[in-house]
Amino acid sequence: MESLNFAYGDARMLLARTPATIRALVDGLPDHWLDADEGPGTWSPRRVVGHLILCDRRNWMPRLEWILQHGAARPFEPFNQAEVYEAGAGIGALLTEFESLRAANLARLEAKRLAAADFDRSGLHPTLGLVTLRQLVATWAVHDSDHLVQISRVIAKRYTHDVGPWRAFLNVLGDRPRRAD
Amino acid sequence: MESLNFAYGDARMLLARTPATIRALVDGLPDHWLDADEGPGTWSPRRVVGHLILCDRRNWMPRLEWILQHGAARPFEPFNQAEVYEAGAGIGALLTEFESLRAANLARLEAKRLAAADFDRSGLHPTLGLVTLRQLVATWAVHDSDHLVQISRVIAKRYTHDVGPWRAFLNVLGDRPRRAD
Repeated sequence: MESLNFAYGDARMLLARTPATIRALVDGLPDHWLDADEGPGTWSPRRVVGHLILCDRRNWMPRLEWILQHGAARPFEPFNQAEVYEAGAGIGALLTEFESLRAANLARLEAKRLAAADFDRSGLHPTLGLVTLRQLVATWAVHDSDHLVQISRVIAKRYTHDVGPWRAFLNVLGDRPRRAD
Repeated sequence: MESLNFAYGDARMLLARTPATIRALVDGLPDHWLDADEGPGTWSPRRVVGHLILCDRRNWMPRLEWILQHGAARPFEPFNQAEVYEAGAGIGALLTEFESLRAANLARLEAKRLAAADFDRSGLHPTLGLVTLRQLVATWAVHDSDHLVQISRVIAKRYTHDVGPWRAFLNVLGDRPRRAD
């Protein structure tokens, strides 16, 4: 019973609002929040914002254009998920960069005037195999949520012991960490 | 190895930014996102915003004042977590109400000019037993994160099948739902 809900306008709307949401959440927080993480092999809010910049630069739109150009004839170029973007950069500068990059990407996407049939076009993911352009755009939006959730969870976990017995009622403190792998 | 990180100014800063973060995330989204949920017994983004309003009205500050007044001599009044606030209300109105309520609560909190020792004062939770005022304020902040994470997760899960094979890489789609209990 798979329910498919994707609509291009909807997905674009979600993608467009992510930079402002993340700015509202982290801009101006002190370093002890921005550099907190969930333990070894996990990322801080600052690192996550850098990762979103790298993905918007090298992953989503380049892969979408790859599908339009090559279809599934050649796999996407691999993308190094573990790369650190500008370690120690000020959060304000990172957020501004993410905002303008995202706006430029959405303008570039719009300019393609994709037709309904374009969303069914296939690409070849280096490890996942066949994917569609529709799945790529849906993934772009869900990837934003994944990392927004991560940032908010990391901030919350810094108070894991501070909440005392209330810990039992706060789901987020028991949610699994996101490991970079 | 319990690490305690609470600082009053920090917690206040987190509490102050939640309304703007949630507004950036959901204001103006269509009803199919606002009323999506994670299945039976789980909440939609609209319902979560209503819950945050109820908590800011009846839970956090009243309990803080209860501690200052009664200490642990009498348990907090029970609070009905399951109550629905203004079912079907427009999201813009809910967000505005949450914003002004939160601002008023933080002003009320500031006006108490709590001393360091006040944070050690004890209260009696009806099911959890002894808690401190410090734990209450930390919990208020983490509770915001818990529900922000929930909203973003619910939005993401609407695309669970739309992402195709990428599902395997998107943690948030496998994160447990938050059940109202």
